[in-house]
Amino acid sequence: MDELRARVEQAKKSLFFSGARIADHLNSFLNERGRLCEEIGGTHADKIRHIFLVGSGGSFASLQTAKYILDRIINIPSEVVMSYELIWRNYRRLDKDALVIFSSYSGETEDTVAGLRMACKRGAGTLAIVGQPESTLAREADIVIPYANGAIYEIPILAVLLYAFGLVGCDNLTPDMSAIYNSIFQLPEAAGEASQLEETVAEAKARRLLSADHIYVLGSGPLSPLAYKLAMSVIMENIRIGGTYSDASEWRHGPVEALSNIKPNLIALLGTDESRQLTLQTIDFCRQHGSEVLVYDAVESANVHPLLTPLVMNSLTQWLVVYSALLRGITDLDARVFMGHRMLTSTGASWP
Amino acid sequence: MDELRARVEQAKKSLFFSGARIADHLNSFLNERGRLCEEIGGTHADKIRHIFLVGSGGSFASLQTAKYILDRIINIPSEVVMSYELIWRNYRRLDKDALVIFSSYSGETEDTVAGLRMACKRGAGTLAIVGQPESTLAREADIVIPYANGAIYEIPILAVLLYAFGLVGCDNLTPDMSAIYNSIFQLPEAAGEASQLEETVAEAKARRLLSADHIYVLGSGPLSPLAYKLAMSVIMENIRIGGTYSDASEWRHGPVEALSNIKPNLIALLGTDESRQLTLQTIDFCRQHGSEVLVYDAVESANVHPLLTPLVMNSLTQWLVVYSALLRGITDLDARVFMGHRMLTSTGASWP
Repeated sequence: MDELRARVEQAKKSLFFSGARIADHLNSFLNERGRLCEEIGGTHADKIRHIFLVGSGGSFASLQTAKYILDRIINIPSEVVMSYELIWRNYRRLDKDALVIFSSYSGETEDTVAGLRMACKRGAGTLAIVGQPESTLAREADIVIPYANGAIYEIPILAVLLYAFGLVGCDNLTPDMSAIYNSIFQLPEAAGEASQLEETVAEAKARRLLSADHIYVLGSGPLSPLAYKLAMSVIMENIRIGGTYSDASEWRHGPVEALSNIKPNLIALLGTDESRQLTLQTIDFCRQHGSEVLVYDAVESANVHPLLTPLVMNSLTQWLVVYSALLRGITDLDARVFMGHRMLTSTGASWP
Repeated sequence: MDELRARVEQAKKSLFFSGARIADHLNSFLNERGRLCEEIGGTHADKIRHIFLVGSGGSFASLQTAKYILDRIINIPSEVVMSYELIWRNYRRLDKDALVIFSSYSGETEDTVAGLRMACKRGAGTLAIVGQPESTLAREADIVIPYANGAIYEIPILAVLLYAFGLVGCDNLTPDMSAIYNSIFQLPEAAGEASQLEETVAEAKARRLLSADHIYVLGSGPLSPLAYKLAMSVIMENIRIGGTYSDASEWRHGPVEALSNIKPNLIALLGTDESRQLTLQTIDFCRQHGSEVLVYDAVESANVHPLLTPLVMNSLTQWLVVYSALLRGITDLDARVFMGHRMLTSTGASWP
């Protein structure tokens, strides 16, 4: 037991486990870069016809979350694209009137660097949100928003949102938009408090799932991309077991039939937004048919605007992952078996 | 064995197994409705500022495929949205200048009907692609494209593409766009021949996967949405075992780490488009690390434009599913345990 405590303390220093220091991370970004993001948006007002949001892995999920909120704020069409797909899709409308926003913590992700170079060739504007200011992405993009800490999921979302509020201009906000904007600045405290509380219950949750060799993660609305990230690039990447993502509303359109035959272990992310009722129904149905469902309920933990709950709940799920990994003998949360060792790239890039 | 043959013959009559009659299905749609789709597009030229493509389950995947191709054809921004998300996202730009295209075979899908009613309230134009012309969706949409047969995945894609070619106008096609357009009319023969050939090898493929209780499906580029459909609304829905979808390029960004610990059964859809090389790399990597990978290679089967391969390969995967279901004792491919029995809806809708 003392060894587990010691491992958790050690894990708090890992890049992965930003949830342990989330209030500081969010505060320092908002204080140091918040105004920059809004100013960049301000200079782009009326100049952008289309926004592409480009990333891979966790960054892809982070940008999906950003877009969900963006759709309420700006009138400009936007879409999230996996990095290589920006090249493969060969969009007709990727041109000088488009802004392409790239997100990559390392700034060296093979796919994302390739996407940036293609966007430059097409004459589109480029903006990079990167954790490493000395990286290829930072060097080659038109505009850079660097951040110095490890809230890798949350900070690109904040950067995109503040950029969008800059685009719209503070004089043009509807009451709903103002509510989102104001709640951004409640996030550090809300996320910090929720993460602290989670510390006391996370081990028990991890033990409930300790025998699982596959976990399904459901979420809906603004929490759907976080469910995707948790299944595909956290459970499979950090706990190294099987994972499946499904939107909680889509679960009814096919996957649910398997419950007649299998009893999957489920994690459900339950929000405070319009999608809550449907996710509740899905949770009830799964439980009635024999599934174990671990629920993260934003009502209990995320005292922020309903669209911003993912920025609180990511930290809570990190506690689960830290305990799950440690209890399964994975002690270095930043170590990777395959990724980052140039085994998965064809160009000599370091990531993945 | 004779019993299995008899079951397969019976399955060919099911709604699910359109692959057995795919050439007829595609031909009759192109002959009976092709011109209608283009004409509707023609009347919308210069009148549409944004296109939303809305569906759930298999229809959602079908529309994702359509959008992948659409991005090469039209300059108008488009996005695919799960039906309830059209309501939840509350897009600022959902207004009279937007066209919302809905797809639902039954025309009674709870989520999609709710989305249609919301779009009407917002003053957007609405177009429904439905298999049942007497349905709620057909009654309430501004424009209806009905189809009388069961190629539920392929026909909405064709309808959207022909609509898009109508929007652009046949005088304005680039050589690449003309190549896509011309290849549409090769599809019935190409898909029919490929499906016939698959009949001779499908049982052996199903037997390779017969002990699997979970299957991962990878695909990239235009085949990525078909991989999603196969995992979530075919394997889980029709074979009733576990399923996971991952884009083949995203597999490197997280999920791959689990291969250090698990040896998943994989199906890979391999295209002839720009994404082929990366999917090949991913397949090789998985095999090197002990995974069984069943590959569907479009080079061998889909003699059509590289963007149209999903419209051939869906039928091939149906053969696998038919044999897999029958060999596991599921004999009625159109029967559902939970869906369609009003157990999963709150409004009294029949589907899901």
